[in-house]
Formats: sequence, structure tokens, C-alpha cells
Amino acid sequence: MSNTLKSPEAESLHTSALSVLKFGGTSVKNIARIQHVAEIIQKRLEVGPIIVVVSAMGDTTDYLVKLANQCTPQPNKREMDLLLSTGEQISIALLAIVLQSMGIRARSFTGYQVGIFTESVFSKARIVDLKTETLTAALKDHDVLVVAGFQGLTETGDITTLGRGGSDTTAVALAGAMQATVCDIYTDVDGVFTADPNTIPTAKLLKTIRYEEVLEMARLGAQVIHPRAVELARQYGVKLRVRNTFKPEHEGTTIHGGEEVEIYRTVSGVAIDKEQVRCSIMDVPDTPGVAGKIMRALADKNIVIDMIMQAVHPAEGLNNVTFTVNEAELAETIKVLESLKGKLGTGKVLFDKDIAKVSLIGAAMVGQPGIAATLFESLGGSNINIKMIATSEMKLTCVVGRADAQRAARLIHDAFELDKVTG
Amino acid sequence: MSNTLKSPEAESLHTSALSVLKFGGTSVKNIARIQHVAEIIQKRLEVGPIIVVVSAMGDTTDYLVKLANQCTPQPNKREMDLLLSTGEQISIALLAIVLQSMGIRARSFTGYQVGIFTESVFSKARIVDLKTETLTAALKDHDVLVVAGFQGLTETGDITTLGRGGSDTTAVALAGAMQATVCDIYTDVDGVFTADPNTIPTAKLLKTIRYEEVLEMARLGAQVIHPRAVELARQYGVKLRVRNTFKPEHEGTTIHGGEEVEIYRTVSGVAIDKEQVRCSIMDVPDTPGVAGKIMRALADKNIVIDMIMQAVHPAEGLNNVTFTVNEAELAETIKVLESLKGKLGTGKVLFDKDIAKVSLIGAAMVGQPGIAATLFESLGGSNINIKMIATSEMKLTCVVGRADAQRAARLIHDAFELDKVTG
Repeated sequence: MSNTLKSPEAESLHTSALSVLKFGGTSVKNIARIQHVAEIIQKRLEVGPIIVVVSAMGDTTDYLVKLANQCTPQPNKREMDLLLSTGEQISIALLAIVLQSMGIRARSFTGYQVGIFTESVFSKARIVDLKTETLTAALKDHDVLVVAGFQGLTETGDITTLGRGGSDTTAVALAGAMQATVCDIYTDVDGVFTADPNTIPTAKLLKTIRYEEVLEMARLGAQVIHPRAVELARQYGVKLRVRNTFKPEHEGTTIHGGEEVEIYRTVSGVAIDKEQVRCSIMDVPDTPGVAGKIMRALADKNIVIDMIMQAVHPAEGLNNVTFTVNEAELAETIKVLESLKGKLGTGKVLFDKDIAKVSLIGAAMVGQPGIAATLFESLGGSNINIKMIATSEMKLTCVVGRADAQRAARLIHDAFELDKVTG
Repeated sequence: MSNTLKSPEAESLHTSALSVLKFGGTSVKNIARIQHVAEIIQKRLEVGPIIVVVSAMGDTTDYLVKLANQCTPQPNKREMDLLLSTGEQISIALLAIVLQSMGIRARSFTGYQVGIFTESVFSKARIVDLKTETLTAALKDHDVLVVAGFQGLTETGDITTLGRGGSDTTAVALAGAMQATVCDIYTDVDGVFTADPNTIPTAKLLKTIRYEEVLEMARLGAQVIHPRAVELARQYGVKLRVRNTFKPEHEGTTIHGGEEVEIYRTVSGVAIDKEQVRCSIMDVPDTPGVAGKIMRALADKNIVIDMIMQAVHPAEGLNNVTFTVNEAELAETIKVLESLKGKLGTGKVLFDKDIAKVSLIGAAMVGQPGIAATLFESLGGSNINIKMIATSEMKLTCVVGRADAQRAARLIHDAFELDKVTG
């Protein structure tokens, strides 16, 4: 704080804690919802000034995409970003108008008005710099700054959008740059659970969870907050909370770095991913560099693979390479692998769509062999066949038949007593 | 043109004449219409590069205003401008997408990307500066630059809108700054007529008209192009054309400074304004400055009055002051005049709603007394009572009963043989 003289009124609010709040599209879907959001903000003002990040209203983005597709099947990406950024611009103006009508000193800012600079990549730009001068100055005579999520500006003045998880990312980046005490992501669920409550009714809401755990969960389809935003929060040590817009009195889940707690639970949740398929390339010559060439060929097509395994084949000197890949990318994957046959002398390409990944996540799992044993016992005892297994520092994933996935997740959830998690 | 080396292809188009084209909301109401606009542009590219200015699609602005009014009856003007400017941003992106899909090198620009600086007055800002660097640079590798009309930027980075006639004004300002050879305002009428063709079927389309004449016509309700844009065009000598989007092969009306023609027709058109009322303030003391105080009191409330007349009253030393005012402002006008009674010692306030202004417009009317005579004869001969008369350099207005207005206009149109106008 500067030491220059200020009126006591102006001082009182701004010496206190700055919060960043983010509301997604469903939370600002219509004027009634925007008014509800404004009430949440009003209540939060008791604690200190607020920066609110909002997404486009409900279906606005879909509507704009539809308009563009009526023009041409593959619209230019620069123009698409310019088009889509209007969605958030509409939301911030309306939310500011509602807040002002309640007597709150609010003001809206587009991404370029704030100075959220991104790389010059349209439709999925990453933030490279974020100016704080405008917002800091505006906080002197405003209590709520409403910032458009999802959008930024290139060095040459073009509008970019940040792609998937863009608004969450804007919120976390602002919280980091403005040194906010907390970044609350308001959404339509209560927070992060030990498992999907729709699948496992005994799933418990987690009061706290570590960045790494929620990242693993998000990557496995249990997506309440985009992994990109979580990674950024981890990088800048931003305290994140996931809260329910429609239950604003609930605390939700706090995502943190784990420094605050010395003793931490071993496992935190179970996640199911049914969108993967298993793919194998047979008879890969056991020559150095061949597996690398396969991976490179897939990476060149932007195909993300996981659970890579290499198993020795009965015929000497030949391996089978197996991995999982998103079902949507299977056709492209097969094309790439078939094209390698001639070049690398590899064999048949096989795939199995009847799989699901069931993962147990826990930041403190590493070096605890009993965990794997408990998991395998729980599945084996119920006759669930495990097709693949992979372990990492804080994740244990097994691939089972798709029909067994939910039952497997429930067995694991029970075996680790996740329904009794307290923190 | 610079003398640096360029490829002949790049040169060919850009040494040739730059045109500015403006399309209003009805012209870009949906994707089919935007595609039609793109075809007009494609054809015009044969002549040279193009800057296109577009308004928001059809009802977009109304929709956004409705959303804001759902929030509060009097939304903040800064936020409204930020909100409304999204309308044009959507149009420019979509038009650029369509043009690109036709293989045309097009690029869109918002008002702030161009650098259209305005005064810091929301909802009706005037342009104070217009940067040409961005557009000039973009013309090196683009053939069509699509610019958002109606919007600008304050020095401090706020988005403003230009108010009524905003997109026409953007187009003319760009044409002036970029030294375009012509500024074509595409709309849904054929051009400027000698009278409203809906009222007077014999009305003729004018091939040319002077800035001053079209200004008078526009002020009198015959509004095909906003007077503000015409004034700007006159100031910078921009050659304006009004053309029909749906009849692109028609030449429309050219609005010019009149320098090109030595002999010019005496009268150009007849306009009717039915939205005025007559207002009188009786027994105004004949003291110097009293009339001035009345005018000032009205001006302070932003009430625009016209046809001011002062007639000596039978009672010595007292005058009656009569003027016309827009009917929408009558209530406020009466309030102001009543409030003056005590202060100035003025008398009763009277008004007459049953009036219409019928005006004959012609840049070369001045000093031609025969014109007034012809006009009065034509009305008198058909028993139309003239309630008020006012003349100016290039306009002769008479106030008649509202029911007589159309007949009066037709009689005048005939008397001056406007149906035989050829240029």
C-alpha cells in the first residue's frame, strides 16, 4: 500500500483482501442468473474488493460458431477469435450494469483493455504477459472489476481466444498477477468429489485437494476445473476453490499446494475414463529407435497417447507396443501406424474399443506398495479382469472392460474407504 | 505511392482507386445477405481495393438493448457502448469469413484496432482522430478491409459508440482520411428522390444532389443518409453515393459539392415532416434579452426548436413568440415555458399539434423570388391554409394542417415539375 493520504472510506475496502471469482457460462446464462451472480458478489464484498471473470452467456458461443459455419465450413481462425470474443464482452457489460444498478462501484474490462497479452496463435493462445496497471488503478475507485475471460491480445493488436479452459485460466492468471488471496471458480457442481457422485453415490465431497491430484482427476475425465488452470495455479501458488454458484453458502473444495498439512490422506479419489481405446502395433523390430519413431509419427499428428507398454513377443527380437488413445483419434492413429509398416517393418495393427480406465489418485501414494495390493484384491475378488496396469507417482490406473468400469470404481472406492474421507 | 520494389501483382490493385463501401443493418441481416454483400464487393474489386464499413446485423442492437433493459431501466452508458459495440464486431468477422471463403484477401478491424479515436462521451461520441497507419499497412497484402462502423475508442482505451448515423459517419471519416475516390452508402432504397415515392408516386430519383440539399432533406425527415455523415463529407470533400444493396447495378444518387456543374437546377425536392408541433408563448415583454432567455432555457434542456417567429401583439410592448418543436419534446417544452412565467412575466403557453411542415429544397433557390410566388399560388389555388412560413437560403417551408400535408407536397412537386428532373 502507498502511504499517500486517502479518505478512510476508500481505504477500508482496499486494504483488505482481493478475491478473484470466476463464473462460467451456465452461471450467467440469462439476466436472472446474472442477477444471482451479482448477489453473490455483493455478499463477498464484505471481505474485500473483487475481480470477477465471466464466460459468455449460456449458448452464445455455440450460436456464434453456428453463424460462422453457415458462412464456410472452415472459417479463418483470426476472424473466429474476433467473433467469439464478443460473447464474453456481452457478459461483462451486462454484469457490470447489474452491479451498478445495485449501487456497487463496478466497471467492465475486455481482455485487451486489461492488457492480457498472448502468443499469436488463434483459437488456443497461451498468455505470455498480463499487465496489472489498469486493474490496480481501477481498484482505487471501484470495488468490482468485471473482466472478460477466454480472451487476449497479441502484440500486434489482434484478438485471440485462449481455447479450452480459457476463462478458468484468465481467472487464475489474474489472481496470480494481482496477488489475490483466493481464486474461486464458481460452477454448477459442489466441488471435487472422491468419485463421480452420479456413478458412485457414496462419493464424498473433498474439502481440500492438492493441485497434482486434481490435475490427474481432470485428465481422467473428472473435469470440474480445467487442468491448464490448475497447472497455472500450482505454478504461481494461487489458492483455488471450486464452488457451486447455486449453493453460494457452501465452501466447496480448496485446491492447494499441500504445504499447509503435514499428514495427508493417502488416496483422494477414483476416476473413470470411458473415452479411451487400446491400440497395439505388433512385431516391432527390437532395434534402437524404432519405438521412438512410432511415437514421433503420432506426435506429429498431435495424437496424445498414454499407458505405453512394450511386451516381448515369443518370436525373438520382436516386440508388441501397446498404448491407449482417445477414441476420437483412433482412425487417425491407425492411419499413422499402417503407414509405418513399410518404413519400419512393423506388423499388424490391433485395437480394442471395449476398455475403460479406472484410476485411483493420491498425492501421497508413492512408495506405499500396499495400495496396489489392496486394489488388485478388490477387483480380483469380484472377478473383474484387468487388461492393463500403469502406475505413476500418484496414480494407479487399471484398464478393464467398459462394462466393468463402474463396478470396479465402486469396489475401489469402498476398498479405500473414500466414503469416509473427512478433509 | 512509395517507390520501393513490389511485385506487379501486388501493385496492380493498389495503385488503383480505393473505394469505401458502407452496408447497413438490413444489408447484413443474415448470412445469405452477408453473402450477397460479399458478391457486390467482389465485383467492385475490379476497380481497386475496398474498405467496407458494416453495421450490426439486423436486430442485434435491439436485442442487446433489450438485454440491458432487463437488467436496469437506465444502464450505465460506458457499459452500454461496450455491449453494443459487439454487434458490429460480429458483422465484420462474419463478412471477413465469407470474403475469405471466396478467395478474397480480407481482414476485419474493430474501431479500436483501426484507431478511430473519439471524445470521451458515451453513446454519441464524435470522432476526434483517425489513424491511417494500420489500414494503409494492411492494404499492402489485403484487398478488402472490413471495418466496424459506429464504434470508436477514447484516449484512455474505453469503447465508445458514435450514436445515430454512426456507421455512415465512420465510412465518410475513413473515406476522407484514406483519400478514397468515393464513399458508397448501400441501403435499402434506390437513392435520394425529389420527394418520398410512397407519398408522391411521380417522385423522381435524383442522379446528383448537393451536400446542402440532402442535409436539408435529411433534417426534414427524408432520411436516406444521416446528416452528420453528409456534413462530414462536405467538410472533407468526400464524394458520397447512396445506392441500393438489392439493386447493385443501379448507380444511385451522387452527393457532391456542386463544383462540377455550373448550371444547376433551382429546386431538388419536397419533404414532409409530420412530427412537429407549433408552440407559442404569449405576451412576452418587449424588453431586450427576453426572447434570448426563453431560447436559452429551452437550449439548456437540449430542446431543438425551429421556425422561430416573433409577432407584435395588439397590446403595446408585448410580443407573441412562436416556434415549432418535435412532438416528443412538447411536454418538456411546456414545462420550461411555464416555469418562465414568474421570472420573465410572460403570458399563456399555447400549442397546436395539427401541423405539418412541407418544405421545398434547392441549393440555387436563393434570390429567386418567383419560387415563393409559385409555391403559394399552388397551395392557395387548392384551398390549403398556410399557418406559418419560413425561408432560408435553400429552403422554403410552410406549415399546413397535418391532413393537408401530402396534398400540399404533391401540388408543390407538380408546380415545380420535379417529376421531370433529369440529373
